[in-house]
Amino acid sequence: MNLILLSEDDFIGQNCVRLEGRRLKHLIEVRRSAVGDTLSVGLLNGLIGKGTVTTLTPDAITLDLHLDQKPPAPLPATLILALPRPKVLKRVIIAATSMGVKRIFLINAFRVEKSFWTSPLLSQERIDEFLSLGLEQAKDTTMPEVQLRPLFKPFAEDELPAIIKDSLALVAHPAAQHPCPSLLNQAVTVTIGPEGGFIPYEIEKLISHGFKPVSLGQRILRVETVVPALLSKLF
Amino acid sequence: MNLILLSEDDFIGQNCVRLEGRRLKHLIEVRRSAVGDTLSVGLLNGLIGKGTVTTLTPDAITLDLHLDQKPPAPLPATLILALPRPKVLKRVIIAATSMGVKRIFLINAFRVEKSFWTSPLLSQERIDEFLSLGLEQAKDTTMPEVQLRPLFKPFAEDELPAIIKDSLALVAHPAAQHPCPSLLNQAVTVTIGPEGGFIPYEIEKLISHGFKPVSLGQRILRVETVVPALLSKLF
Repeated sequence: MNLILLSEDDFIGQNCVRLEGRRLKHLIEVRRSAVGDTLSVGLLNGLIGKGTVTTLTPDAITLDLHLDQKPPAPLPATLILALPRPKVLKRVIIAATSMGVKRIFLINAFRVEKSFWTSPLLSQERIDEFLSLGLEQAKDTTMPEVQLRPLFKPFAEDELPAIIKDSLALVAHPAAQHPCPSLLNQAVTVTIGPEGGFIPYEIEKLISHGFKPVSLGQRILRVETVVPALLSKLF
Repeated sequence: MNLILLSEDDFIGQNCVRLEGRRLKHLIEVRRSAVGDTLSVGLLNGLIGKGTVTTLTPDAITLDLHLDQKPPAPLPATLILALPRPKVLKRVIIAATSMGVKRIFLINAFRVEKSFWTSPLLSQERIDEFLSLGLEQAKDTTMPEVQLRPLFKPFAEDELPAIIKDSLALVAHPAAQHPCPSLLNQAVTVTIGPEGGFIPYEIEKLISHGFKPVSLGQRILRVETVVPALLSKLF
């Protein structure tokens, strides 16, 4: 938690917030905060700045705020990800969010296990929790949007054209001839398949919509490794 | 497990191996292997190729081998990493290994918690397990070397000059002026600090030995995100 993320609900005055729960626990147990300490804070979807601890009890902490900086620039990337197994999902969402991705689609694919779609981690509440962890990690405040698309074909046929408009559309595919481009200065839509990869029908469908298959090399990487590797390579 | 990693101890004939334990369990439960199936296999520090299942019981599986290809080229990178917290260590070693790193130093730093050095995950046996998982993931056979260095100063003063010889020496540092270079075609030694970063003394020590501080941008990333992001960016 490199930044304490604040919401409108936390305000008890124009420049004053009161925090309980997870953030209070972190400030007491991990940071060992004390009255007078200055902390990095940011308002959800708003400015970042400093918060000075004014009171601290086991029940609540209050901070006086001075918010004057914009959050870091977003990464111009839309991430389309075949739904990974639940224990990996959390880490991947945190990683992508911390790197600045602001739009994530979690989609179905033939090799996505059906049971993954019933995971409680897919509730809006849990997803928001992972997104917040990613923002707090990167000192960012701009909440990404995560969309679930449990049907591949209607997603590909009805939604992809609008999603990839004005962006370079890439699909990571270990068997691709072309290496992944780098140092791009444009919007990118990047798609990453499930464990075992997309099946030929899915790859063909993506190609028919203008996606270019690109490779990071012959090594097959875990999805939690591919996501940061690919995003870092592209920009 | 995209490749079944074999050791000399598995051989029961010139081109025949017998497997029990973890690999057998994986082949039965995850792969649902059957007699006649062909699997990607590789000999530890040797060639990769195919193995055909000849017998399969709940106690053991035997494979006939045809090994004829070299493993993928290593990444020309030495990774020097401030020892991360144990639950992160495993993932980081797997990620670095899957990306082709062959030499890893786990070092101390002021902000490494003392307790991390007493973790049972630092036993040679557990480290070898993580390295094997990384090799199996990337279909590689060349075992990396992991060295523990619980004292920063003697490591820096006595060992660094020989380690970085003939390589570009970089230290990832969010406050650095220079962006991380990319598309390099040379050996690199890259150093990543602990949560909270290296202290000024440590950064100065690294700089005095020829390390150049480089930044991946203003966003502060988790070590498990930085490692793939940095390795992918560099090459």
